[in-house]
Amino acid sequence: MTAHARSTDNSDPTRPLAGVRIVEISSFVAVPLAGMTLGQLGAEVVRVDPIGGAADYRRWPVTDDQTSIYWAGLNKGKRSVAADYRSPEAQDLVQRLIADSGVLITNVVGREWHSYESLARLRPDLIHVTVSGRADGGTGVDYTVNAGLGFPMVTGPAELVTPVNHVLPAWDVACGVYTALAVVTALRHRDATGQGQRINIPLENVALATAGNLSFLTEVMVNGTGRERIGNSIYGQYGQEFASSDGVSFMIVALTGRHFRDLCELTGTTKAVAALAKTLGADFTDEGERYQHRDALTGLFSDWFCTRTATEITAALSATSVLWERYRTFAEVVDEQRVTDNPLFSALDQPRIGEYLAPGLPMSINGDYPRAVAAPALGDDTAAVLAEWLGLSGTEIDQLAESRTVATGSDAAPR
Amino acid sequence: MTAHARSTDNSDPTRPLAGVRIVEISSFVAVPLAGMTLGQLGAEVVRVDPIGGAADYRRWPVTDDQTSIYWAGLNKGKRSVAADYRSPEAQDLVQRLIADSGVLITNVVGREWHSYESLARLRPDLIHVTVSGRADGGTGVDYTVNAGLGFPMVTGPAELVTPVNHVLPAWDVACGVYTALAVVTALRHRDATGQGQRINIPLENVALATAGNLSFLTEVMVNGTGRERIGNSIYGQYGQEFASSDGVSFMIVALTGRHFRDLCELTGTTKAVAALAKTLGADFTDEGERYQHRDALTGLFSDWFCTRTATEITAALSATSVLWERYRTFAEVVDEQRVTDNPLFSALDQPRIGEYLAPGLPMSINGDYPRAVAAPALGDDTAAVLAEWLGLSGTEIDQLAESRTVATGSDAAPR
Repeated sequence: MTAHARSTDNSDPTRPLAGVRIVEISSFVAVPLAGMTLGQLGAEVVRVDPIGGAADYRRWPVTDDQTSIYWAGLNKGKRSVAADYRSPEAQDLVQRLIADSGVLITNVVGREWHSYESLARLRPDLIHVTVSGRADGGTGVDYTVNAGLGFPMVTGPAELVTPVNHVLPAWDVACGVYTALAVVTALRHRDATGQGQRINIPLENVALATAGNLSFLTEVMVNGTGRERIGNSIYGQYGQEFASSDGVSFMIVALTGRHFRDLCELTGTTKAVAALAKTLGADFTDEGERYQHRDALTGLFSDWFCTRTATEITAALSATSVLWERYRTFAEVVDEQRVTDNPLFSALDQPRIGEYLAPGLPMSINGDYPRAVAAPALGDDTAAVLAEWLGLSGTEIDQLAESRTVATGSDAAPR
Repeated sequence: MTAHARSTDNSDPTRPLAGVRIVEISSFVAVPLAGMTLGQLGAEVVRVDPIGGAADYRRWPVTDDQTSIYWAGLNKGKRSVAADYRSPEAQDLVQRLIADSGVLITNVVGREWHSYESLARLRPDLIHVTVSGRADGGTGVDYTVNAGLGFPMVTGPAELVTPVNHVLPAWDVACGVYTALAVVTALRHRDATGQGQRINIPLENVALATAGNLSFLTEVMVNGTGRERIGNSIYGQYGQEFASSDGVSFMIVALTGRHFRDLCELTGTTKAVAALAKTLGADFTDEGERYQHRDALTGLFSDWFCTRTATEITAALSATSVLWERYRTFAEVVDEQRVTDNPLFSALDQPRIGEYLAPGLPMSINGDYPRAVAAPALGDDTAAVLAEWLGLSGTEIDQLAESRTVATGSDAAPR
């Protein structure tokens, strides 16, 4: 391990991880998101890639000239080093970067040269976090994990019998944030004890734990019944989609008694709902009963929605406690104030792509949101990181680049 | 603030947060999940609820005798204190618990008595993390946030024109893990600097940041085009659902060139795919082109799937590199080895519900998974926490219980 003076100035509360260095060997969503999140909290994150890029470097969506908007989105604020992974000399350099930083996050498992065992010899207090597919060592990606779990069979219109995939890779996202959590927890533990940690987060386990925590699995084990497909209703409470007279869809949620009373009042159904309760012998102060009788209730509420325009509905709902939202497309969202006038977003000038509003970390710290920082291009920081972290001279770096052990700048790009 | 000797023994690597105390004032998913996660990492988490329970104490699914499986799932391993929030004396007690612990996580915003300003007077280095609906102060829950974001308009069969909600409250889950991350990062920052933090995580910002990070918003801003509804296909690569001759659905993903070549070989379409490439002038070594021509490719592959049984398909796929999964229901999942023989799950004897397999934290630390611990019943720990944390005597606690300022055990339950 090479020891260097490094900034430990963490007095900026919006950069609490300042002074922490992290090496990331990754592709796709979970680990890149983890590295980006740690960077947004102030860590110096170096993503190391093979020369030519990992499997995600050209992932869609892309610009007209094939620059990946996807890659730029998940690697904001990182530094990029490119090296020839097949070269023992390059492997040695990357090992030294990991030993210097003391933290590796990776979803590239099964490579002896950056296994915990190999690296802990160089850095005994290493924090080594791997994201894998399944707990048993099997492979898996978000869309296969999700297929095997149960959610697609209960998503979509009630009359469907075929599965409906999610579009959001929700397991990747959750797994990425768990990975960031694992790193910071291990850093704090190392600060206190001097001990490193070897952590593994199987993507499927994130999904299984979530399905268990949220009772989707437990209700089968306890009650012997699994969730049914209920369209856009929310299970266990009153939540429903309604369409306006001009064909706009709204999501309406009455989570509490007050919400429900307001919804009845708004739609002029207070008496009708009371009569329905009497007829059914139901108690609509109980959210479970509101759920059980949701179709009858929806029948009563629908008239109000389908005889009003979206504008009228919006104005009326805004004056109540009811939880609601107008369904929007992504194209509509980008013009909304929630994006254009939200401190989460800042204008980012992303080289090779252009200027747009990019999100930073979705939390404010002491009132401030850490701003988005542009993503590097592959190999942008190879020379600088080798010099700063490992103390290599310009001549040494030139030789490494000449032998294609590493690549800098445009020499690192796919050919 | 009352200072107490407390365990700071964090030498157990699977309990790195041992010695940390956290107060949670919460309901629903995000903050309860955050508190549970922090507890699974070793923190002592006290969930404080109003006498009779918060809005989620009876949430479905429930057992035959109306015990909430949902609540038990999201509050595993916590301690429970019940107090009458309307009583100034109870507010004072809860404030003292928060001041003692130095960490509050809550989604109950707008209450002066547990605002940052009120509490920081008692504990200047407080870590105060709030989860709110929207950045502008507006309300929002997972299903309204999701409706307003764009995902429901691109989920489900391509021919649909109406929105499809997700069943997994993905934003709540991500927000909960971000909340845990915020707490641990702030703890480490406080350890180093002595400074507390005031953090706010709007649920909608978690969703907006994710949609931005994953390019759903950015591609509109850069390319002027929004994502389309593509059924169960995966955007930007080859991923597709297929049905077997006996009607079982499979999700097939060819992420890399090797996966794709294996899929062609398996289905006996190598030559046909090459001919298709020639006809179309397409380069199927490029994942973007595999995506663009997915329907033609699916047409070629389908024959193989629809003429084989699920058992035959499973056996054949298992011998390849192709990423795949058989769609399963939740009821099927619970009997799979991935649950029954996975160290993530352990047999949990949950009072009032029974014994079942419950997930712990979805990560192994030095090879071990922290085990699941049962959830309390409301008020189970009121007396113990007031004694241990605040040093109250038995007589004082009895008086508080008698005046219903606090409630213990079954006295805390809903009436």
